[in-house]
Amino acid sequence: MRKEIVLSGYGGQGLVLAGIILAEAAVIYEGKNATHNQSYGPEARGGASRSEIIISDEEINYPEIERPDILLAMTQDALDKYGESVKEGGLIIIDTLYIKEVKPRSDVEIYELPITEISIRETGKPLSANIVALGVLVSLTGIVKRESLEAAMLNRVPPATRDLNLKALRAAFDIFKKG
Amino acid sequence: MRKEIVLSGYGGQGLVLAGIILAEAAVIYEGKNATHNQSYGPEARGGASRSEIIISDEEINYPEIERPDILLAMTQDALDKYGESVKEGGLIIIDTLYIKEVKPRSDVEIYELPITEISIRETGKPLSANIVALGVLVSLTGIVKRESLEAAMLNRVPPATRDLNLKALRAAFDIFKKG
Repeated sequence: MRKEIVLSGYGGQGLVLAGIILAEAAVIYEGKNATHNQSYGPEARGGASRSEIIISDEEINYPEIERPDILLAMTQDALDKYGESVKEGGLIIIDTLYIKEVKPRSDVEIYELPITEISIRETGKPLSANIVALGVLVSLTGIVKRESLEAAMLNRVPPATRDLNLKALRAAFDIFKKG
Repeated sequence: MRKEIVLSGYGGQGLVLAGIILAEAAVIYEGKNATHNQSYGPEARGGASRSEIIISDEEINYPEIERPDILLAMTQDALDKYGESVKEGGLIIIDTLYIKEVKPRSDVEIYELPITEISIRETGKPLSANIVALGVLVSLTGIVKRESLEAAMLNRVPPATRDLNLKALRAAFDIFKKG
């Protein structure tokens, strides 16, 4: 099992941190192998941001992503740029606050969710949208356990924001709670 | 003429910069007197932020604001905290993305507008919401001329963001364009 994930949006949405959290959830809490790579640093506030994660049961010899299994798109630009690259049978997760035009693809699953608005509703601010997005991604794919994601998140976010981020993460999990 | 303005929300929405731009529009481009004061610095990303501006034709001897003439509220917390303080006959401008509950007041004007969503629509990102808000505020009040605001904005925002901020500002002006 090797899964390639791209988190894309703009600098300021916390996608680099999200990539680190997801990779650490896999490595520290589940003993898997993972790599994380960022195209642009968090200093590029407003610029395009792309965070790449590979999670695998095997050693990762080739840490490049050409066609991801999973794409999170947090801006229209990101979807327009990377939407076509997702593998057949893959998954695209879209934040409906930013993305109004979705080019249909019959060979991938596309989930459109108000990720940033869930953060605002739960915490009053959009800053936990990255954590909501991880909660959605993990719920849909099972790529790591929810408990692993939660532990990795609590370990990485600024301590003063733990409670709000936990509220945001659990709201994301609750979307997919069975009956 | 002395007008007291409070811009309130959270650190990261650019309200300190917005306060500086509005004060400079009055001072540099219209020869008025103005003061600008911030309660929390922009480093308080995610924390509460309050930016105070006084604009006057006369010398400003008392630079404190107790009851503003104009309040911009960019989070629910900000509206809940400062909404009651606005003077009778004053103006409250609300960002509907963040604020879902508005306590009615018959003695002030309340404008509810999708400020951040206008920024996203025009630029793909919410980062120009502060500039949209200024465009709305100036259009509604005429506290400075639109040209003065535009010049002050272009002088202050990072050069790489001038075009996008200008697009956002003009979209705000266009809301109030006659016929």
